[in-house]
Amino acid sequence: MFACNGYAAQTPTSPLAPFSFERRDPGPNDVQIDILYCGICHSDIHTARGEWNNHDFPVVPGHEIVGKVVAVGSEVSQFKVGDLAGVGCMVDSCRHCPSCTAGLEQYCEDGGFTGTYAAPDKKTPGMFTYGGYSKSIVVDQGFVLRVPTGLELAAVAPLLCAGITTYSPLRHWKVGPGSKVGIVGLGGLGHMGLKIAHAMGAEVTLFTTSPNKAEDAKRLGAHHVVISKDADQMASQANTFDFVLDCVSAQHDINAYLAVLKRDGTLVQVGAPPEPLPVAAFNLIMSRKSFAGSLIGGIAETQEMLDFCAKHNIVSDIEMISIDQINEAYERVISSDVKYRFVIDMQSLAA
Amino acid sequence: MFACNGYAAQTPTSPLAPFSFERRDPGPNDVQIDILYCGICHSDIHTARGEWNNHDFPVVPGHEIVGKVVAVGSEVSQFKVGDLAGVGCMVDSCRHCPSCTAGLEQYCEDGGFTGTYAAPDKKTPGMFTYGGYSKSIVVDQGFVLRVPTGLELAAVAPLLCAGITTYSPLRHWKVGPGSKVGIVGLGGLGHMGLKIAHAMGAEVTLFTTSPNKAEDAKRLGAHHVVISKDADQMASQANTFDFVLDCVSAQHDINAYLAVLKRDGTLVQVGAPPEPLPVAAFNLIMSRKSFAGSLIGGIAETQEMLDFCAKHNIVSDIEMISIDQINEAYERVISSDVKYRFVIDMQSLAA
Repeated sequence: MFACNGYAAQTPTSPLAPFSFERRDPGPNDVQIDILYCGICHSDIHTARGEWNNHDFPVVPGHEIVGKVVAVGSEVSQFKVGDLAGVGCMVDSCRHCPSCTAGLEQYCEDGGFTGTYAAPDKKTPGMFTYGGYSKSIVVDQGFVLRVPTGLELAAVAPLLCAGITTYSPLRHWKVGPGSKVGIVGLGGLGHMGLKIAHAMGAEVTLFTTSPNKAEDAKRLGAHHVVISKDADQMASQANTFDFVLDCVSAQHDINAYLAVLKRDGTLVQVGAPPEPLPVAAFNLIMSRKSFAGSLIGGIAETQEMLDFCAKHNIVSDIEMISIDQINEAYERVISSDVKYRFVIDMQSLAA
Repeated sequence: MFACNGYAAQTPTSPLAPFSFERRDPGPNDVQIDILYCGICHSDIHTARGEWNNHDFPVVPGHEIVGKVVAVGSEVSQFKVGDLAGVGCMVDSCRHCPSCTAGLEQYCEDGGFTGTYAAPDKKTPGMFTYGGYSKSIVVDQGFVLRVPTGLELAAVAPLLCAGITTYSPLRHWKVGPGSKVGIVGLGGLGHMGLKIAHAMGAEVTLFTTSPNKAEDAKRLGAHHVVISKDADQMASQANTFDFVLDCVSAQHDINAYLAVLKRDGTLVQVGAPPEPLPVAAFNLIMSRKSFAGSLIGGIAETQEMLDFCAKHNIVSDIEMISIDQINEAYERVISSDVKYRFVIDMQSLAA
């Protein structure tokens, strides 16, 4: 074990504050990474505040991690000291269930994947995982990503969650040239959805409640912007979309977006509204439409996404902060006051 | 025009009663059919009672029609006098939109398909279509089905709606050997779902609230029966189904059936509950599940279904009635007191 500094929430109601803890020494299959940048995901806030599942405290959040390899185990073949490396939402899974063997570790059927933070750690029984708001992290090589060179490193960090969460459904449902794609909501997820769908060759429309987001949406890759509060604008889009990616986590009217799908179209929810969403069965039946969900992406697909982003020069739009601004940043995330992702410069963490 | 006898609802509140009306003489592309049998679908009741869209009265319901060809137009190539023929839920569509040209006339994008009853009739402008509770019908050859020989004719009639409504989604979502399929609800649709899914080679489970339906379900093709009110039985099925066909038209808890799907599984609603169904987005997201709908099937697929049923010796389980029992039969349909479809012997209609 070795000592590591980070920032943690000690209880669901306490602000994040400096915290010292221990990490395991790298085993034969482990990669030890000094963390350069870590993105802030809304999930970090839900977990730090105990709003989701039961888990232990303290919580060291952070699952959009980019850093530099400083040590590798004897069995590690894909990474060497000095390499850039990334870690996303998962650090382990069962590796033998049908989903894991299909490269879909995010849907692990034997206990679920091991989250990068606040999850029971298979490799150090009795302990919980600590995430990327910290000096370093030790991760099995099977869950470490290669970070392509040539991209702005800090802005790569959010690709590890926001990037793959939008890339995976766009790829799974075969978005490409000729597809008409809607992205609902312009936040951390939505802005990545616009960039990636555009790069895939789709005709991309942003649906937003905010007319003042139109200009930015077009800069980010939208060909069209529809103001979803405007009934006439929405009606004019009826039955025209192959695919809609819904990035909104607040309660909202799903039927309005099912209505813009063509026959055999699919609406995929990646934001997770807390209450059930009423769905009118007739909206699905009358044109064989589907309402589906999607969760991040597998490790191989995350690597594919990073390579795709490098090829198309895609990174997140970010605001960089130092770690002592974390609590203020959380409040701004909650009020959607960020364009479009905060990234922590981990150099700001005291050694 | 020629005179035709039938049974009609004159207003939304009047019982069905004898009614004389006129049908068009067969044009060059038309087939005139003397009706032998007509099934009773719950949609007939909704329409006769004005519970769905606005439409004209009187309504002559009936869209599960089997009969004998008595005249054909000069351009008709696929039918000759004396042939058996079937008519389902559609008698026309635009024939040029993307759905129609794909053989998916049920999703016609240019005004929708022309329903077999209570729909504006493109071929006789100003008139509405009259359905199969009648002596004869005249239908464009593009919407007439060939009825295979060797099946019990009366029991073929319900295949034209209940059969294709269940066959189409089972085929579209590629159910076959190796598939684990759930059918929710044992009524007119559900009993066809059991028979067809079984014949497709799937492992079939009926979900029902009624323990006393278990024996019949197994006779109809279910390998297993799960009592959906039993929480332990439902929990034991979690994450095990590739496909669930939900045949229930009453309000019910969709999330309970999403829970039994495997990763990438699909729940298809073919019954149409009147109120929106609350769907927990997390249920979809955590295993990339889909909630979809499906509406009857196209004409080519309906023919495929009839041929499939002939090959596998599948017909509906029916109770035969005479036309003067129609109002009593409606009440029994509403209280689910029929195994599993009423069919009217049209010989009982006075000439």
